[in-house]
Amino acid sequence: MTADQAQALRSLVLGQEIAALGTLHKGEPFVSMVPYALLPDGSGFVIHVSRLATHTRDMEEHPGVSLLVLGERDAGQPAQALPRATLQGQAQFLPRDDAAYAGARQAYVARFPASEDLFGFGDFSLVRIVPRSARFVGGFAQAWSATAADCLRALAGTA
Amino acid sequence: MTADQAQALRSLVLGQEIAALGTLHKGEPFVSMVPYALLPDGSGFVIHVSRLATHTRDMEEHPGVSLLVLGERDAGQPAQALPRATLQGQAQFLPRDDAAYAGARQAYVARFPASEDLFGFGDFSLVRIVPRSARFVGGFAQAWSATAADCLRALAGTA
Repeated sequence: MTADQAQALRSLVLGQEIAALGTLHKGEPFVSMVPYALLPDGSGFVIHVSRLATHTRDMEEHPGVSLLVLGERDAGQPAQALPRATLQGQAQFLPRDDAAYAGARQAYVARFPASEDLFGFGDFSLVRIVPRSARFVGGFAQAWSATAADCLRALAGTA
Repeated sequence: MTADQAQALRSLVLGQEIAALGTLHKGEPFVSMVPYALLPDGSGFVIHVSRLATHTRDMEEHPGVSLLVLGERDAGQPAQALPRATLQGQAQFLPRDDAAYAGARQAYVARFPASEDLFGFGDFSLVRIVPRSARFVGGFAQAWSATAADCLRALAGTA
């Protein structure tokens, strides 16, 4: 991964705040929408999910997930040219006494201030998604892959 | 599914042209971006995919897929209020001699005229995705499910 590629991945992920989350649901892929924040150290994404939601139960049963982040589409640009990244990762539920909980909550609430009230409800969980790999598509014939270490450096802005 | 719900699903799907496609990749969910068209009879979505792409090989091995279509987000609207639909479906590769091929190609090219050239290449496949069920989220506390028959009527505009 070059410095330019790392910057492209970081810009894409920082520039958006929702992703398509793929979970494994009874053996089938299931895609839903999740707002996300990034951990400042680049170690992962943070999502805040209801225990009532299908994707939450899916992640409890199978922590392997996929996140698709779509970039902005310029007017007149063909759909296939839309920049996007797929990150394969592991979902880790963060209990309130986890060392990472406070920082993850802070990152999430900073991005979504209206979510603060939901942290008072017992049926919401904070989940960290740690990337294992990424696939970035910048448009036609512009695609590259990133390892877990690449993702960490790109998302932390230290690549 | 009420007539209003059917109309909301149809409007959402007709108003967008890209979806997040979830496939099963080596036992894990994998989410990628696909442009799509609708078949006029409401019987499914049509996508046009390269044999070189991960999602294509995934669908060959496991036809169960998930499609997430996101609506437009109004300025200032919280991310969680974004209308969206998840459709669980089966991917069916359409050979050129399939009775449904010509109509599917026509629907796809009508929506993506620039794709016509790609039909000359042997490494692209036309795939129909037939919905088994759908889950529509209209915003906070507005969610409902649809059966395969509901989806067919909603997408055909006959609900």
